[in-house]
This record gives sequence, C-alpha cells and structure tokens, in this order.
Amino acid sequence: MLGTHEGRPSYTHRVRVGYVDTDAAGVVHHSQYFRYLEHGRVELMRALEVDYLSFERERSLALPVVEVRMKYRAPARFDDLLDVETWLSEGSRAKLVFTSKLRRVADGVLLHEGSITLACVQMPKGSICSVPADLLAKLRG
Amino acid sequence: MLGTHEGRPSYTHRVRVGYVDTDAAGVVHHSQYFRYLEHGRVELMRALEVDYLSFERERSLALPVVEVRMKYRAPARFDDLLDVETWLSEGSRAKLVFTSKLRRVADGVLLHEGSITLACVQMPKGSICSVPADLLAKLRG
Amino acid sequence: MLGTHEGRPSYTHRVRVGYVDTDAAGVVHHSQYFRYLEHGRVELMRALEVDYLSFERERSLALPVVEVRMKYRAPARFDDLLDVETWLSEGSRAKLVFTSKLRRVADGVLLHEGSITLACVQMPKGSICSVPADLLAKLRG
Amino acid sequence: MLGTHEGRPSYTHRVRVGYVDTDAAGVVHHSQYFRYLEHGRVELMRALEVDYLSFERERSLALPVVEVRMKYRAPARFDDLLDVETWLSEGSRAKLVFTSKLRRVADGVLLHEGSITLACVQMPKGSICSVPADLLAKLRG
Repeated sequence: MLGTHEGRPSYTHRVRVGYVDTDAAGVVHHSQYFRYLEHGRVELMRALEVDYLSFERERSLALPVVEVRMKYRAPARFDDLLDVETWLSEGSRAKLVFTSKLRRVADGVLLHEGSITLACVQMPKGSICSVPADLLAKLRG
Repeated sequence: MLGTHEGRPSYTHRVRVGYVDTDAAGVVHHSQYFRYLEHGRVELMRALEVDYLSFERERSLALPVVEVRMKYRAPARFDDLLDVETWLSEGSRAKLVFTSKLRRVADGVLLHEGSITLACVQMPKGSICSVPADLLAKLRG
Repeated sequence: MLGTHEGRPSYTHRVRVGYVDTDAAGVVHHSQYFRYLEHGRVELMRALEVDYLSFERERSLALPVVEVRMKYRAPARFDDLLDVETWLSEGSRAKLVFTSKLRRVADGVLLHEGSITLACVQMPKGSICSVPADLLAKLRG
Repeated sequence: MLGTHEGRPSYTHRVRVGYVDTDAAGVVHHSQYFRYLEHGRVELMRALEVDYLSFERERSLALPVVEVRMKYRAPARFDDLLDVETWLSEGSRAKLVFTSKLRRVADGVLLHEGSITLACVQMPKGSICSVPADLLAKLRG
C-alpha cells in the first residue's frame, strides 16, 4: 500500500512470520529482519514503478548495502503478521538511505526500526558510480 | 579428516550449531541441515584436491542440486558439535550423489542422514553436460 | 486459494522470490525451498481452520520434520512469483506427508516438487505420539 | 585465538564462506554477517569460560539483540576464509556492546565492521534485568 512519510512516498508491505524465522528463545531471530526490510524496499520500488531488474540487466548497475542501523523494540513471534513501512529517508547521487518501521498488525506496536544505506556500483568491476537520476526522482516522489 | 566409506574416500567435517540455526521448538530447524551438508561436500572436494572454483571460472560448469533425500533421526541443539561425514555414494557422467551422515560429537549419536544429487550444467545456458572425468575420478578415489 | 488434489483439499500459496534467496549462480539456492514449502503447509492448515498454535500451546504437541524428498526441475530467480500448491498426500496416526508442487506464475512451469513427512511428538519430552484425529480429519477433507 | 583489543580480551574466530551465504550479485549477502558475528561472540564467551547455556538454563536469563550497526567495506565471496575479531567495546549493568572486525585471511583486508548491543532479560517474562556481574567481569578482562 502506497502512502507518504514526511513528504516522501512510502510503501507498507505485509509479511507473515515463518517458523523458520524463529530461534530457540521463541522469537524471531535478529538476522531475519534484513529479509523483511529487503522485501519492503523491493516492494516500495515496484510500487513506484522502478524496474530494478533493468538496472541490473541493461545498465549493469548494482545497489550493494554499505551500512545498516537497526533497533529492536519488541520481539516478533511465529505466525505474526507484520507491516513493514519503507521510504527513502535520505537520497543523493552518492547513496540511498531507506528507513523502515515494522509494526505488529494485531495491535500496531512498533517492533523494529532500521535504516539501510545503499551505494551504486558499476558491474562487474564493482566501482562506485552515481545513483541514477531517474531512480532518485521516483524515490523522492 | 579424510577416511573411507564403503571403499570410497570420505571426509568428516566438524560444525558448531549456531543460535541462528535453531527454531522456536528449541532445536535446529530442518532447513539448516542443507547448510551443514553443503559445507561437508565442499570440504570433501577440498580434501581430494578438487578445485571447485576452477570448474566455475575456467570451464564455466556448475553443479546444481537436482534431488534431495533427508532423514531426521534426532534433534541437534544450540552449541552442539556435529561431525558430518560425506562421500560419493553414486557417481556417473550423468550425476553425482553425495551421502552424508551427521553425528553429535558428544555421544556419537546419528542425528541425520542425507543424499544430495548434483547434475552438471554448462553455464550460462544451464544445459546439462557430462560430469568431468577428472572430478569423477577424484571423488571415486 | 483452496482447491483439491486427488480428492484431498489443497492450498495454493503465492510467494515472491527475494534477493536473499538467491546464490552466486544467479538462481534460488536449493535450501530456500524448505522455506516456501513451510509457508505452504502453514497456509494450507490455516485455510482448513487448523489452529496450529493451539496444538503447541494447549496440547503441548509438536510436528517435527522426519523426512524430506525434493526434486528440482528448473531454477527460480530473483523476483519470480511462485505458486506453491500443498496437500496431504499420505496421512495416518503415525505420520503426515505433505506434498507440494511449485510453479512459476509467469508461465506455469513446474520448478520443484517436494514431500515433507512430519511426526507428532509430545513436548517437552519429544516422545512420539499419535497424530490428533481432528487434525487428520481436516487435512483429509 | 584469544588476544586483546584496546585493553579488552578479544577473540579471533575463523569462518569459511559457504555457497549458501552468497547472492545473485556473486558476493556474500549482507544478512549473512549476522551469522558470522554471532559465532564470533559465542566463541569469545567460550574462550573466556563464560558458560552461556548455564545463563539460559540455571538463571533463566537471555541476551537479546537490541541494536545493530554494521559497515560493509568490501565484499566477501564464496570459499573465502574470514577472521572475525570480537571484543566487548562497551559494557555496563544495562547493556553489552560487542564490536567485531572481519578481515579476509588471504590479504588481511578489512571487509566489515559491526557493533551488536545486547540487553539482559529475565525469562520467560522478558523483563529487562541487570547484566550479571560475573559475565561483565569476564568480558572486561
């Protein structure tokens, strides 16, 4: 579902917690939030009609993760439905910072916040290049 | 550690169960055994001086998994040390079947048995080709 | 979406392939199909109004995986939509066998088939017990 | 291997990159570093004779991750050997911050830096409690 966050387009993607996501403490293992946030970013781009595959295939660009900051507020559990809201919180030709807030659908409680910074690199060399202007424009809304 | 199993070279690779490998039932999630078996196969090949990366890079071959059979005998838990013994149980120009037995180091109990069948494909097309004779020879011992 | 397969209730669950699911060969890593099949089973049970959490919480039962058989027909790739159809192919008081067929939505091609056998155990001891009759009845349709 | 970092005990744990850790860009997926860092922390505690399982079992304590910061400097690839050096960079009764530096063994290049903050909670309620003094003392050295 498309929305806005601080004037930027945001997307709320719903995910279901799998048993595979949990650990022996009975809660979602901290590493699994990367998965939820990645799906959130991909769906934000899809909703904004960014064709991520064409960046890879036609322009030979990749968007590697270069920095991550995450705060875990409360645990998620097996079979929980979670809403992952994602938006571009900071964007320039040098980097894209996506921020996500993850809430439990049942009661709206904020479980997790994370920011993922992507750079843009030219493949196959992997050398840093500018974020494409059309990508930046769509994410800024 | 190199050994033999039914006349074939085998390799025993030791792995430590991570917290990330467990699930809410307090045991290793069934999907994680793929990881242990993959490490077991790679270490068997390394011990037999098979240069897997050169297959990929110089000959453009890949060895995709085409079939899996696994039996779960008893659960593994966080921090367990496991010994994964792996050998080529069946090999031809058409396919390679690796079998692994996974035992808990503390008491030698058999926890898991699995067979993974690999085919050989020519990349990037992905068309089926023959398993290289030199690879087969090394795995057969 | 509920349907039937050979007279049994089946459920088709749609999943989107994440980048995290892929490997360096550019395709979905073989270990990830466990994840898709697990979601498929859980959604089949939900559609049949099986309350899996109440088995865990009220009856202290667990349904561990004891056997897996999978065939990989063709690779899935990043961003593919997949339909996972799941049904109880064999069921008794001793075990439940769920079979899944996984097709690419874009062209209906069968990519993967798998059967997962679950036993029923009494927790926390983990001793084998009978599959509850009400669960079996719902899955048999 | 035990060492010291800024006066604190540190531990260097060696890991081998699996094929399962890679993604379609041909490098280790950003989510996998959590796994390496978790193994690094567990091995630091083992080297310092912290019995983590006894915290769980005898004192009903858990150490959930509450914050993560990671910087990705350069990609790791399949079959790379990595050295993960981990130490307690900040510790109090309220929280433990473990910092890790991850270097490629072949050339010593720094690939990744991360800090993981753990809180201490009383199970099964999950209420915040003080970090045990004996744990803190061992980690501080």
